[in-house]
Amino acid sequence: MKVVFLGTGAGMPSKLRNVSGTVLDLSQENGTHWLFDCGEATQHQILYTSIKPRKIEKIFISHLHGDHIFGLPGLLGSRSHQNGETKVCIYGPKGLEEFIYTAFKVSQTKLTYELQIYVVEEGVIFEDEHLVVKAKRMQHGMLCFGYSILQKDLPGALQVERLKAMGIQPGPIYQEIKQGKQITLPNGHVICGTDFIGAPKKGKKLTFITDTHAISQSIQFAQGSDLLIHEGTFSQAEALQAEQYFHSTVSQAAQIAKEAKVKQLILTHISSRYQKKDWLTLLEEATCIFPNTVMAEDWSEWVF
Amino acid sequence: MKVVFLGTGAGMPSKLRNVSGTVLDLSQENGTHWLFDCGEATQHQILYTSIKPRKIEKIFISHLHGDHIFGLPGLLGSRSHQNGETKVCIYGPKGLEEFIYTAFKVSQTKLTYELQIYVVEEGVIFEDEHLVVKAKRMQHGMLCFGYSILQKDLPGALQVERLKAMGIQPGPIYQEIKQGKQITLPNGHVICGTDFIGAPKKGKKLTFITDTHAISQSIQFAQGSDLLIHEGTFSQAEALQAEQYFHSTVSQAAQIAKEAKVKQLILTHISSRYQKKDWLTLLEEATCIFPNTVMAEDWSEWVF
Repeated sequence: MKVVFLGTGAGMPSKLRNVSGTVLDLSQENGTHWLFDCGEATQHQILYTSIKPRKIEKIFISHLHGDHIFGLPGLLGSRSHQNGETKVCIYGPKGLEEFIYTAFKVSQTKLTYELQIYVVEEGVIFEDEHLVVKAKRMQHGMLCFGYSILQKDLPGALQVERLKAMGIQPGPIYQEIKQGKQITLPNGHVICGTDFIGAPKKGKKLTFITDTHAISQSIQFAQGSDLLIHEGTFSQAEALQAEQYFHSTVSQAAQIAKEAKVKQLILTHISSRYQKKDWLTLLEEATCIFPNTVMAEDWSEWVF
Repeated sequence: MKVVFLGTGAGMPSKLRNVSGTVLDLSQENGTHWLFDCGEATQHQILYTSIKPRKIEKIFISHLHGDHIFGLPGLLGSRSHQNGETKVCIYGPKGLEEFIYTAFKVSQTKLTYELQIYVVEEGVIFEDEHLVVKAKRMQHGMLCFGYSILQKDLPGALQVERLKAMGIQPGPIYQEIKQGKQITLPNGHVICGTDFIGAPKKGKKLTFITDTHAISQSIQFAQGSDLLIHEGTFSQAEALQAEQYFHSTVSQAAQIAKEAKVKQLILTHISSRYQKKDWLTLLEEATCIFPNTVMAEDWSEWVF
């Protein structure tokens, strides 16, 4: 899985950070992209990446503040002109439908593909044979959700070398063995396919939490994530502002990462009050608590 | 007057041209900025100029296609966080109010300043002691207006050298002369103020026409403009597409400039099908018909 950060700032765009937008690039897994939040000019940021808007098939919206949704009408409209044919599903709090369809009605935007908008409630909001998405309420002064993406365990690999050593050469029989079937070989021996399949590969877990107070519920929600993307709008020195505006400090985000025993924390939603020269200080504040932390920048990518 | 181009592309943003947005910088005239159209990421483009969002007090919208309005909620919201205190007046077709206030309601955006939205009809839509704005219907498949900004004639300058030669030294008397009053000098001579004021300085005229078929009505509307900003989405080779999508070719724009006897034509709303290497060819197509033509680029400025 790959994450591509399109907008890592807070509230308003600045020269250094656009407003919120993050892509989960599932090209290797299912050939699609999923987008988390879509602030204004998300489609502009995409121009400088390898992301294809026509491949974005799911959009998860944390909450309805403008810096998380004002890019939706433009992105969805442009997708029609970029050969977008497959259905797009949008998940988020109530109100998205009114916002998007009013923009479309007024601007006479017509899509070339199907659009489905789901009103999110806590719990499992999507599941297919490979992935599960769960939503969890956050605390942000308006209804806001964190999202957790769990990849189901992948089947173990076929132990080809062992089969070859037994004189069983590649062919249609390998498919049967992979399916775990009991098979009688030409020499009369009987083997069980499951004996030749390695241990299942554990699926990855990604948790995406923005915008919110740092809340204890996030610890359980993010538990054991391979990657936690958590907002860190303020430094701990501005903890009062974080409290007042329903945001987290980078220290608080790091504490959650530590207690949730995640493998990696990426900080995003950084206030524009912090100049580039301040970023290292902010990051150090987090790494003191949770060493395996990085700070997202616009267009930075993370493979996990 | 100064014009600053923020977005000079058509339909969708590209790396080279953003969607529509043009600022008329009236800093020298009345200390404010006027914005014409506000496509997505207009506020982002402003970050790279000297334009102050808090100084934008009037916004004129040609029509409601997304590439002309989707930047409004973000720009207006951000203006609140950028010390915007003065009233903003928006002029455009019916539907703007529904679009803007739905976006504000859903995103819980609250402005720190008064916002007034006017539904435009043809004719004079604004007038103060210095400027008049007129609207004219265009042809674009949806209701669309061109705008003409006329600066009222400026009073002539006081002929200071002539007064001094007559022994009349600067002082409060100059103010009375400037007002055209009849004045008795200490030596008994009577002078008439109007005799010492130069010819009035003709006010400037700016005409802004996008998006539309090239229509004959534009010739009269733009007549005698110091500056005509006209869309030129296509080359004449794509005249059929221009016809089909209710746009103009650069040749058609140049023909209007010629017949309207404007001083300067600036082409904008250039389709992204034209790469940078094609721009000169497009421009040459126009200059064959109207030599005094330039092609706008994002962030280019024009003082007139």
